[in-house]
Amino acid sequence: MTLLNSIKTSHDLKKLSRHELPALARDIRERIISVVSKRGGHLASSLGVVELTLAIHYVFNIPSDSLIWDVGHQAYAHKLLTGRSDRFDSLRTFKGISGFAKRSESPCDAFTVGHSSTSISAGLGISVAKHLKQDRSKVISVIGDGSMTAGLAYEGMNQAGDADRDLIVILNDNEMSISENVGALSSFLSRTLSANYLQNMKKDFGSFLKSLPGIGDDIYRIAKKSENSFKTFVTPGMLFEAFNFDYFGPINGHRLNHLIDIMENIKQLNKPVLLHVTTIKGKGYEPAEKNPIYFHGVGSFDINTGNSISAGSKANTNDSLKPNKSLILNNGHALMGTTKNESPINTANSRDFHINSSQASASKNRADVIPTYTEVFGRTMIELAMQDKRVVAITAAMPEGTGLSKFAEQFPDRFFDVGIAEQHAVTFAAGMASQGMKPVVAIYSTFMQRAYDQILHDVCIDTHHVVFALDRGGIVGEDGPTHHGLFDFAYLRNIPNMTIMAPKDEHELAAMLKKAVDHDGPVAIRYPRGKGEGVVDYSVSKDIAVSCGTKCIEIGKAELLCDGKDLLILAAGKSVQDSIKAIAELEQKNISTALVNIRFVKPLDEDMILRMTDKIHNIITVEEHMLDGGFGSAVLELLADRGRFGSGVKYRIKRIGIRDKFVEHGHQDILRSEYNIDTAAIVAGAMEILSGYKN
Amino acid sequence: MTLLNSIKTSHDLKKLSRHELPALARDIRERIISVVSKRGGHLASSLGVVELTLAIHYVFNIPSDSLIWDVGHQAYAHKLLTGRSDRFDSLRTFKGISGFAKRSESPCDAFTVGHSSTSISAGLGISVAKHLKQDRSKVISVIGDGSMTAGLAYEGMNQAGDADRDLIVILNDNEMSISENVGALSSFLSRTLSANYLQNMKKDFGSFLKSLPGIGDDIYRIAKKSENSFKTFVTPGMLFEAFNFDYFGPINGHRLNHLIDIMENIKQLNKPVLLHVTTIKGKGYEPAEKNPIYFHGVGSFDINTGNSISAGSKANTNDSLKPNKSLILNNGHALMGTTKNESPINTANSRDFHINSSQASASKNRADVIPTYTEVFGRTMIELAMQDKRVVAITAAMPEGTGLSKFAEQFPDRFFDVGIAEQHAVTFAAGMASQGMKPVVAIYSTFMQRAYDQILHDVCIDTHHVVFALDRGGIVGEDGPTHHGLFDFAYLRNIPNMTIMAPKDEHELAAMLKKAVDHDGPVAIRYPRGKGEGVVDYSVSKDIAVSCGTKCIEIGKAELLCDGKDLLILAAGKSVQDSIKAIAELEQKNISTALVNIRFVKPLDEDMILRMTDKIHNIITVEEHMLDGGFGSAVLELLADRGRFGSGVKYRIKRIGIRDKFVEHGHQDILRSEYNIDTAAIVAGAMEILSGYKN
Repeated sequence: MTLLNSIKTSHDLKKLSRHELPALARDIRERIISVVSKRGGHLASSLGVVELTLAIHYVFNIPSDSLIWDVGHQAYAHKLLTGRSDRFDSLRTFKGISGFAKRSESPCDAFTVGHSSTSISAGLGISVAKHLKQDRSKVISVIGDGSMTAGLAYEGMNQAGDADRDLIVILNDNEMSISENVGALSSFLSRTLSANYLQNMKKDFGSFLKSLPGIGDDIYRIAKKSENSFKTFVTPGMLFEAFNFDYFGPINGHRLNHLIDIMENIKQLNKPVLLHVTTIKGKGYEPAEKNPIYFHGVGSFDINTGNSISAGSKANTNDSLKPNKSLILNNGHALMGTTKNESPINTANSRDFHINSSQASASKNRADVIPTYTEVFGRTMIELAMQDKRVVAITAAMPEGTGLSKFAEQFPDRFFDVGIAEQHAVTFAAGMASQGMKPVVAIYSTFMQRAYDQILHDVCIDTHHVVFALDRGGIVGEDGPTHHGLFDFAYLRNIPNMTIMAPKDEHELAAMLKKAVDHDGPVAIRYPRGKGEGVVDYSVSKDIAVSCGTKCIEIGKAELLCDGKDLLILAAGKSVQDSIKAIAELEQKNISTALVNIRFVKPLDEDMILRMTDKIHNIITVEEHMLDGGFGSAVLELLADRGRFGSGVKYRIKRIGIRDKFVEHGHQDILRSEYNIDTAAIVAGAMEILSGYKN
Repeated sequence: MTLLNSIKTSHDLKKLSRHELPALARDIRERIISVVSKRGGHLASSLGVVELTLAIHYVFNIPSDSLIWDVGHQAYAHKLLTGRSDRFDSLRTFKGISGFAKRSESPCDAFTVGHSSTSISAGLGISVAKHLKQDRSKVISVIGDGSMTAGLAYEGMNQAGDADRDLIVILNDNEMSISENVGALSSFLSRTLSANYLQNMKKDFGSFLKSLPGIGDDIYRIAKKSENSFKTFVTPGMLFEAFNFDYFGPINGHRLNHLIDIMENIKQLNKPVLLHVTTIKGKGYEPAEKNPIYFHGVGSFDINTGNSISAGSKANTNDSLKPNKSLILNNGHALMGTTKNESPINTANSRDFHINSSQASASKNRADVIPTYTEVFGRTMIELAMQDKRVVAITAAMPEGTGLSKFAEQFPDRFFDVGIAEQHAVTFAAGMASQGMKPVVAIYSTFMQRAYDQILHDVCIDTHHVVFALDRGGIVGEDGPTHHGLFDFAYLRNIPNMTIMAPKDEHELAAMLKKAVDHDGPVAIRYPRGKGEGVVDYSVSKDIAVSCGTKCIEIGKAELLCDGKDLLILAAGKSVQDSIKAIAELEQKNISTALVNIRFVKPLDEDMILRMTDKIHNIITVEEHMLDGGFGSAVLELLADRGRFGSGVKYRIKRIGIRDKFVEHGHQDILRSEYNIDTAAIVAGAMEILSGYKN
């Protein structure tokens, strides 16, 4: 590690001779593997660009020259080379090194990033600004081939070619985005040109040849036969040249000398340049090379085997903050569902809430087999697809992440991975819905932000029946501010015709998905990252979806989980679980609390909310979401519109959620505690409003 | 007109012989010009595709075959040919024919549209759905070359080529989007290939030639000289072929026979096909051919000259609904500004509100010279750019629409039209801001929806100093549901670090823009479509911006326009004007009303709002915006968070805005009346809360 420890800046690196670099590359890889095996992180892509990163820092002067990483999850080597080696083992932990490029962390990170495909646009902006300031330093944007499927990258390339500014784009081509790459562009890059394309080219080429003086039919015939030579002639560069980029490549991204030589040359040019580099995702760590999809974003693992280390022993979890999975509710409470058999936890008696100690301990034993929300979504999708041929699934480069891999195997004709192209995913779904299909678009909440206009304009104006499965709603943890799904209620709630659901547990997710597929119109279901709540004994039945009817879910109807008299909690989604725990604590303080699982953020269950708030005037709303324009805000709108604030009744209202700040990275539970949206915050909120108001 | 009148369906058209079609094309053009000259509308693009539309309907069976227009403003001929000829003179009027393709209007409109670049994605969705249903009918997506700059189109093309489904894309290439086209792709389509590109191609080509058996250096030299032949060989089709589309064209889009022949052929193919058609925007109407930018979207005009008919006599304005421009405020009111010289209307005495009858009549005389908000924005931008070299302007294909044409002339190096590419516009701006520039991104509110994620992820997380000028905020009128700017407060308000301003008049817009350029951080200024309020005598001084300081605008500070005791109105943006009129009416009913021009939707002026609401408990919030998550909702959040609803005070609150519905098309004032957001609605709201609550 001595070599790596000696490098604090890009400047230090230049003191090394070229033949010292491979050893440094080894050091970097070892360090990355060692830290990621403990902290989790984006391993495969970071290992793939070690030589590329070294070459860039060896040739260019960072930060004078601006280096922009796309997505930024591959910037670990870059971090190690720019003064962050000492702190690198705090990777992705609270207050530690971010898993992405981040301006506030280092001047060497020219642009903060997390979502894909921004680097060309940002790099062009930086280049144009430098030009206006007569600053002649360089701008290097790195972008993966997967990111090239997103429209933003294309928009940036189109403008960059036109503006003809000094910009170096390095296309890091590992032939996969997160999962395998999709789309026509991908084929183009990998040169598996269609027979049709070649034929057309050859026809044109033939006519051209024949038009040349002195080339007769004979030679044309010879040329026609030379299929292989012709394939060489048709290069991937054509596409980029079409955008007025000077194209170089493809070159092997693991040959350091070669990389350095070509970059030295490219550095001399003052126009848009595209350097096409092919790399191997996971390079240098066999398990990751063999399974780059798994090692894209990974939890802690055993270095020798590459096997996952179970979440319970995850190094970056502060044990004291680990959620208490045993749900305790005092028997004295009368717990009610609004309809029969509503609570999926309860099959015996709809008026009792069967979360007792025996069940809690049972769920502890079976914790290992509790599926994630994502897995439950995937299983339910298969079941629904078997029942209804119109059900199709769409994802944007996330078949594994959204739990749709098995669906894809089972229904290849009805599964569509459109690549990193959220906008297209949604408009494509609207087109399918217009033909009577039932598309379910599964995209993480944070990435769905890219398709806000398409949801509004292409789906909701015409009330197309498109189901949006917003995975990773709420706090996502270590991926940080660029990835938390904290805005969806607000950005969806303002759109007419939209229905927004949030399940309190994985069983309800299955039921809601079924309901959504039956409901004619746009529906969004927002659910959290991570394991379900363990509401079914999965060691007995793995088919959660099978056992769940849709009867319990009625559009716009909330679920009264528990009645009370002192305090009313209105909770959305996973916050219901925190509220259940809070109720138990409040019970010990002799506070009788009613709890409504709101289920629908839109339309709100107006009757239920008014009935309960007319009875109980101490009200807490809880959501894992921004407070501005969120669910709590919707409740205030309802109460105001129905004249409740003009009645003279004293409503003591506490809205719990994220108050107008981007949430940093760290373990989910640490962040929930830090941002006051956990059980303790609910209890504290209750005590605050029950003990009178602060001004 | 007899020929056109005989066509009710695509089926009728097929009864005509080919030689009857040119006469029909003439009829269609006459009808379009006649109606648009009265109603206003998108003339030039509709005239450009008359032959193309005829050919499509002649060859395909609409609606069995699905025809998807991109943007849809060019679909007038299509509407005339599909049973809407009788009602066509209601174009763009309230309850009349929409200016865009609209499913609810006709089964022949396969996909509702208004924003650009959706047709390939939607068409692919429809094609894939048809395939799954074993429906062998055709799908035809028409897209303009301008729309091709948007990432969504590219995302769609990438997936379409990969999916290899039956899809015909017709590229309508008129070499301009709305304004002149920009971007590398545009050059590519127009074949102005860079010398560099050609050189590289020739080099590759040379090596290839030399590698062929039997071709020696001599022939290679000959080939090398054949520059022209070579250019023919390098066709625009390469790009589309790269995406696995079969490319045909470019063909002349005004030669009907040729169009029909090639479409008959294309119809036989069952894979992605791109037909490149070149058309002339405004074809057949000389003034529009000469000035296609002006005639893109135009108000009523004189057919013979092409000259605009002034707004006062606009045919589609219901006179009784025209806004009363004379502002009447009773002298008895004490009217206050929070700081000296705050009211731009008032230069003499900050405590008097000088809108008296003499001024009202003066403003009537000078009504003709009142600039639009857009013009004031453009002028102020020039002034700011003169003062500060860091100020740059960015637009997305709307230099005229956003008022930046003169800026572009005066500061060509600091003006960036990125084409229809809102996402890129925003990330590009963030890149510039990261280098200390002060980018102002001028995009209509409705189109900014496309860049929601970029605003959040690329600008706001790092608090980059990017100014968003959201023109066309609120009701835009005849363009209808796809174009109203009714969502911006909600989608921006949930983003941390964002500042949101809304000026009450054009003078305040200038002042806010200056303030925004000085304020370090993301700022959005949202202002309406249409003429300013006439607050300055423009016949004397055209330089509104010069006379306006920024002192009056303090971040997060509202303006108390008028104190009162019975009722408090909190109004945002243009709604302040309606509120001023409402106050005059309420005065006659002896209701003393206080009015706060809120100025900042975020951060709210908490002190002012709490001070006023603590004094006056009958409260109306007014905004030209959705009620869900809007400005009124922010006020409720503040009052709730500060414990006001727990005080026992009876707050009678009425939020005025659009209640959870997409607003149709029609004249702005008709819609404001229809959706209860005008002066009458404010007065009615006041009477409602003052006479007690309904439940």
